Amino acid sequence: MPTDVHETMMEATYRALCANGFASLTMQDIADEADKSTSLLHYHYDTKQDLLVAFLRYLIERFEERFEDTEDEGPEERLRGFVSRMVPDDDGEDDYDRFGLAIMELRMQAPYEDAYREQLRTNEAVIRSRLADVVRDGIEEGVFREVDPDRTARLVFDALDGARSERVTVGADEAPAEVAAALDEFVFSSLLVAEGEADEGDETE
Amino acid sequence: MPTDVHETMMEATYRALCANGFASLTMQDIADEADKSTSLLHYHYDTKQDLLVAFLRYLIERFEERFEDTEDEGPEERLRGFVSRMVPDDDGEDDYDRFGLAIMELRMQAPYEDAYREQLRTNEAVIRSRLADVVRDGIEEGVFREVDPDRTARLVFDALDGARSERVTVGADEAPAEVAAALDEFVFSSLLVAEGEADEGDETE
Repeated sequence: MPTDVHETMMEATYRALCANGFASLTMQDIADEADKSTSLLHYHYDTKQDLLVAFLRYLIERFEERFEDTEDEGPEERLRGFVSRMVPDDDGEDDYDRFGLAIMELRMQAPYEDAYREQLRTNEAVIRSRLADVVRDGIEEGVFREVDPDRTARLVFDALDGARSERVTVGADEAPAEVAAALDEFVFSSLLVAEGEADEGDETE
Repeated sequence: MPTDVHETMMEATYRALCANGFASLTMQDIADEADKSTSLLHYHYDTKQDLLVAFLRYLIERFEERFEDTEDEGPEERLRGFVSRMVPDDDGEDDYDRFGLAIMELRMQAPYEDAYREQLRTNEAVIRSRLADVVRDGIEEGVFREVDPDRTARLVFDALDGARSERVTVGADEAPAEVAAALDEFVFSSLLVAEGEADEGDETE
């Protein structure tokens, strides 16, 4: 399938999920958003499930591209950047809420649908692994103290995920920003090796 | 309604949710688990929704009772105790997974059902508020450093909630224990005022 057709379909799926939610989403909704025929959609994706798995793969590929774009930044900046992209701003609130709810509803199908479960498991492992790599980089560069990188990544990911749940299900709108502030205070600030400590480390070399 | 009838119904609802999940749960399932007639169930609760809201209220009342039972413990022990009760052990794994999934499915109805949303919002606010009180106690007693109690409670609650999601939806079984370890490392250990600091504080008095 040509790249631009794929891109069009994936962007249409995103818009259709925001507009219709997950539960009632049809191939027709996605075709309408893409301004294509449902037969073209079915030509490329056998079932709605196949299309949604392709969409989850698209999401993680986009995440990887964006995360690679921050490679020139320092470890602290990259972690804070990740967190700030997970907190909705005034312009992005509607999409955060609609898409967040749709993706949670899709995820609630994971226990019953192997294909969703495997792809979501992969996506979440990739995100945690990129975050852990950044923590590892920071430790190697001597800017972060010695912590368990995977455990640190898990806390960051799960806390932001829990905050999104709280916001989109029970309307605790303040949860993502409050969790971001707490991660800043308890995790990122504590990761940084104090100036004095770094100097001491250098002296022993 | 007599207390023991209520208790019987609520325990039956718990067992029925574990056995049948949320989506297909019927009043008949609950009546069967309680060994009562559905007409008795309907006499006390007009609808399944009313019964489930009563069940959510029962859960938070039980939480409050259990949390009050730890009042004689110190702030650090109470926080760690809360976290350890949110991590399944070998005996409790099945119930954690089944009940965790059922309660997440109920929560996914919150955006569409005011009664669920209001009660879940209350439950989550109560839990966070009790945790924040413990942090506040620790600060007043001089064993914790000065942090924002509500923000700290939010991080603890949302991280454990995200970990449960990861486990019950995509099968990341290690998530709750890993988040508990991360909270221990980044939050609880960092809350404790170092012996030296506490002494210094005393000297200035």
